[in-house]
Amino acid sequence: MPVVVQNIARADEAVIDGLAKHGVATVHEAQGRRGCLAAYMRPIYAGARVAGSAVTISAPPGDNWMVHVAIEQLREGDILVLAPTSPCDNGYFGDLLATSALARGCRGLVIDAGVRDVRDLTEMGFPVWSKAVSAQGTVKETLGSVNVPVVCAGAAIEAGDVIIADDDGVVVVKRAEAADVLAAAEKRTGNEEAKRQKLASGVLGLDLYDMRPRLAEKGLKYV
Amino acid sequence: MPVVVQNIARADEAVIDGLAKHGVATVHEAQGRRGCLAAYMRPIYAGARVAGSAVTISAPPGDNWMVHVAIEQLREGDILVLAPTSPCDNGYFGDLLATSALARGCRGLVIDAGVRDVRDLTEMGFPVWSKAVSAQGTVKETLGSVNVPVVCAGAAIEAGDVIIADDDGVVVVKRAEAADVLAAAEKRTGNEEAKRQKLASGVLGLDLYDMRPRLAEKGLKYV
Amino acid sequence: MPVVVQNIARADEAVIDGLAKHGVATVHEAQGRRGCLAAYMRPIYAGARVAGSAVTISAPPGDNWMVHVAIEQLREGDILVLAPTSPCDNGYFGDLLATSALARGCRGLVIDAGVRDVRDLTEMGFPVWSKAVSAQGTVKETLGSVNVPVVCAGAAIEAGDVIIADDDGVVVVKRAEAADVLAAAEKRTGNEEAKRQKLASGVLGLDLYDMRPRLAEKGLKYV
Amino acid sequence: MPVVVQNIARADEAVIDGLAKHGVATVHEAQGRRGCLAAYMRPIYAGARVAGSAVTISAPPGDNWMVHVAIEQLREGDILVLAPTSPCDNGYFGDLLATSALARGCRGLVIDAGVRDVRDLTEMGFPVWSKAVSAQGTVKETLGSVNVPVVCAGAAIEAGDVIIADDDGVVVVKRAEAADVLAAAEKRTGNEEAKRQKLASGVLGLDLYDMRPRLAEKGLKYV
Amino acid sequence: MPVVVQNIARADEAVIDGLAKHGVATVHEAQGRRGCLAAYMRPIYAGARVAGSAVTISAPPGDNWMVHVAIEQLREGDILVLAPTSPCDNGYFGDLLATSALARGCRGLVIDAGVRDVRDLTEMGFPVWSKAVSAQGTVKETLGSVNVPVVCAGAAIEAGDVIIADDDGVVVVKRAEAADVLAAAEKRTGNEEAKRQKLASGVLGLDLYDMRPRLAEKGLKYV
Amino acid sequence: MPVVVQNIARADEAVIDGLAKHGVATVHEAQGRRGCLAAYMRPIYAGARVAGSAVTISAPPGDNWMVHVAIEQLREGDILVLAPTSPCDNGYFGDLLATSALARGCRGLVIDAGVRDVRDLTEMGFPVWSKAVSAQGTVKETLGSVNVPVVCAGAAIEAGDVIIADDDGVVVVKRAEAADVLAAAEKRTGNEEAKRQKLASGVLGLDLYDMRPRLAEKGLKYV
Repeated sequence: MPVVVQNIARADEAVIDGLAKHGVATVHEAQGRRGCLAAYMRPIYAGARVAGSAVTISAPPGDNWMVHVAIEQLREGDILVLAPTSPCDNGYFGDLLATSALARGCRGLVIDAGVRDVRDLTEMGFPVWSKAVSAQGTVKETLGSVNVPVVCAGAAIEAGDVIIADDDGVVVVKRAEAADVLAAAEKRTGNEEAKRQKLASGVLGLDLYDMRPRLAEKGLKYV
Repeated sequence: MPVVVQNIARADEAVIDGLAKHGVATVHEAQGRRGCLAAYMRPIYAGARVAGSAVTISAPPGDNWMVHVAIEQLREGDILVLAPTSPCDNGYFGDLLATSALARGCRGLVIDAGVRDVRDLTEMGFPVWSKAVSAQGTVKETLGSVNVPVVCAGAAIEAGDVIIADDDGVVVVKRAEAADVLAAAEKRTGNEEAKRQKLASGVLGLDLYDMRPRLAEKGLKYV
Repeated sequence: MPVVVQNIARADEAVIDGLAKHGVATVHEAQGRRGCLAAYMRPIYAGARVAGSAVTISAPPGDNWMVHVAIEQLREGDILVLAPTSPCDNGYFGDLLATSALARGCRGLVIDAGVRDVRDLTEMGFPVWSKAVSAQGTVKETLGSVNVPVVCAGAAIEAGDVIIADDDGVVVVKRAEAADVLAAAEKRTGNEEAKRQKLASGVLGLDLYDMRPRLAEKGLKYV
Repeated sequence: MPVVVQNIARADEAVIDGLAKHGVATVHEAQGRRGCLAAYMRPIYAGARVAGSAVTISAPPGDNWMVHVAIEQLREGDILVLAPTSPCDNGYFGDLLATSALARGCRGLVIDAGVRDVRDLTEMGFPVWSKAVSAQGTVKETLGSVNVPVVCAGAAIEAGDVIIADDDGVVVVKRAEAADVLAAAEKRTGNEEAKRQKLASGVLGLDLYDMRPRLAEKGLKYV
Repeated sequence: MPVVVQNIARADEAVIDGLAKHGVATVHEAQGRRGCLAAYMRPIYAGARVAGSAVTISAPPGDNWMVHVAIEQLREGDILVLAPTSPCDNGYFGDLLATSALARGCRGLVIDAGVRDVRDLTEMGFPVWSKAVSAQGTVKETLGSVNVPVVCAGAAIEAGDVIIADDDGVVVVKRAEAADVLAAAEKRTGNEEAKRQKLASGVLGLDLYDMRPRLAEKGLKYV
Repeated sequence: MPVVVQNIARADEAVIDGLAKHGVATVHEAQGRRGCLAAYMRPIYAGARVAGSAVTISAPPGDNWMVHVAIEQLREGDILVLAPTSPCDNGYFGDLLATSALARGCRGLVIDAGVRDVRDLTEMGFPVWSKAVSAQGTVKETLGSVNVPVVCAGAAIEAGDVIIADDDGVVVVKRAEAADVLAAAEKRTGNEEAKRQKLASGVLGLDLYDMRPRLAEKGLKYV
């Protein structure tokens, strides 16, 4: 059953980079409020915003052997996505693995487990979104799989799906939907700037979005 | 039952600003070790310290409609306080709502749920204390209430109560007790400076507070 | 039963300082992947790295009396380690206690509970690793013990054991094993630099560590 | 500040007993989906259903002294409600306290902390809803208050409010609203039986509640 | 985007019933240690063991409207599987919905959220595996989807997949793999009985599975 | 480093059985309110009460190989105590291992992880106290140790220490202190019966324990 899928399809590079510009919250709205990973996935440092194609890792608890296998599958612009087969907060990944991943063009790591050497990773500018920071190491004894479908932090992710991550967390966009989602995000962002200016000038959302009639109809009372 | 209470009493402005200077830990001690919200309420960025009058929001899980309603009720110096009616980590609030709240003079948000666009909020200098950061959006379908009593992160809060928040978390002071608590805090802070100097010079707390006799009486053994 | 053990053995100063240089993740590996405290122990600010001898505190929930007692036992280079006798997130420790501890040469605090005045502590450069940040204060009514064996965040710690803490968390090294662990850490760190350069140049871990035959033997399939 | 309020108002006995019959879920709906305590409050044994007037206890973490004080305030038909001033899972209450409470006519305990001697309590038929079961004992050193307003498991409760508890958890009804809530619950339960029979016969909720037009209007697609 | 998929494929009835006999732990092993839902999914009463085809529900937090829609899609032998779009512990389901589901031949509910009326459900013999028990009700305002792929308690589930649930929790088997998994489970169960007898007679697993040489080779020391 | 300690000292059999009679809460009090494992350790079925000598297992996350090794070390009257080296909720133990352990005279399992086949274990009368119930299986790839000191659910346990477990949870008594703790427990239980009768007759704890003067002295006000 342990398997490495070698040739995976990826979304268009321009689409991926376009999604990165919009950020997680906008992309998530643009695809119908779907695709967010659990809120416990936090960046190890503030300010990073990346998008890339998922190279997925299904790994046993406390065993990071498959990370080495996955790194060989990385191409420029990819993001590693690791899901343990049961909950684990061990530090699967540190500065040596980041060095190797960076040498392959990797843009970051999304891991539903722990990471370590976070000071080094911060200095290297290698962004990680993780469930935990932990120095607790792992072994290399049991196989897992690479580029198979995984559930990572509550989201179903397939190899080649587009991952967008920033200070708000992580969202996944299905590869086949990426171009449409980008179009929807662009439309949305355009609208937002106009709204922002009105709200900044003191116009209320109640009026900007014409909410008063519907609030009244639903029965809201002012006392 | 959904209701918006429009005219709420607020504490004296000078008292509110006075409480801000003392910070959360001191205010909490000054009112008899009461009023802290749960420790999971964390600031989205370090270094902010604010005080203001609570404009409360009771909102359904995953529905931020009432935030728009509450913003109309804000006056200069207020703080939004949102409590969902059941546990929820969705991102109820982002940069557009913050823009609108800032235009009304709002000093920050305390939310027992999630917030998003945290990079933008940080750049705007709009402080938030929340249970979670999450890009997961909300809907606008179900009514809640504004300026009703709520329980937020384990603390009972009424509209017009004074909220103080800083890097240590959030504390609430009953409106009617605010002046007395400020007086107690001032007294406490005065004492602290003298103690700090003695402790810095090497005097032990055991001696400064004359603890040795009572420790002996309770039966502490040195071996 | 409440007791203060006054004369504790400590590890060699040079060994302690040597361990600090290697950091938590390396020390933990060097002693056979043991000794990490739970991953929920987080620093109140980034960038600190310290090592020191544990002065342990066993304290009742919500009662910080024994911290005052423990401070008298501190020597230059020690680290306070507080374990509540049952789970508690109260803020046991703030700027006055830190002032007193610093005056005794204390290098930091590791506490399986809460801390407060974190802005002050950050400005003072007094590092803390804690389970929580909380303004919620404590009382001084019930005795505990100082320099007895404790379990702190899942790790058994005795007075005089060496504590190393940095951005990756906290690890404990048994006093009697400290010199051997340092030697093992030095060997390990030496190896790491060479590996890092090879990985940075694009050599894969699969080849650097000769993993391919064993992966094949275990049955990994490439498709 | 520690205080015991001795003469508290209670709801009408017949109203309380009426509410017990309807159970937690129905009462909660009848008062507009409000008043539930957090879902982590679980009964120590299945099958109990009680209602009574709250005698509230605000207790320090790990200190059950005030339980003794509260028992003197109990009248026939009351329920003890204990809220620690910060999170704690200690076993505040066991078979001796239950024996004493039963002798005063107490109908049960709702505690946002731990309980112990659960086998004895089960044999005695003394129901408890708690956050934890724990043998970890407490001290008697620090005062708290009795019959003051508390927040217990996320719900604001005042002395004399009506508590209803069963296998679904715990709900609080404000004393002044108890009669109205009972009336609403009776109406609701009457309706439920007719609905149950129709649903059992195979009528769909979609038709019974005429949901199809509104689902279509909102845009639900069948494919 | 909200959609109801009406005609879903289901696994063979005999295969489903065969899987039920083997139980969750065996089926999970038989398919290569995959498919378990998170351990927090617990039965509302002990002793039930069911298998059936998943009718999936993707529902907003705090909104159970789609349950009514899903019930129409049930066929004899199905199991409802509800995943909220963000974490929620509300009681989405109670005795009226169970009555309706039973009338359609439903075998149980698997819900990554809360359930209520658990005493009634127990009396009706309608088994539920849930994250929480909660009387907290829901609204019917926002659409979701039925029979779309969901992630429920960490497992990816598609409509028509086979769900097996018992006192050990819940496992999902992909529809297309169900027959093969049943065959593997049968083989496994056959082996287990022989092993059980040997172990009961005092033969050690170390000998039965011939573990001693491999333990020695890995370096296990007896002292 | 992986090691099996073969000859461990055990407490006197009569002392162990004596401790079982008193139960967890009493034993814990008798030894000065120490030794309780975390409250999340729950029995898989109600009503069991056992005591025995700890045979400890330190196991990697997701790997139960060492359980087989430990079973060989069991003697009549022992209890298995498993602590994973990092948090894990996998089902390490099921009916086959229980069959084998029972054949060696084992009285139960205390595991800071998951257990499975709970229906079978219940029928066999093999009691387990665990953090989780989970069908998720484990591998047999990585060594651990047997009969070394472990930290299990927050308590430090050495091989041969006495474990007492019942519906209130689990407590550990140091082997060398077992006889003294039994004596203290006997004294305590004797006192309890007399107190119970007085409390049942309506005497208040306030009077029975003469608490009123000390409450007044501390400043408790009756209003």
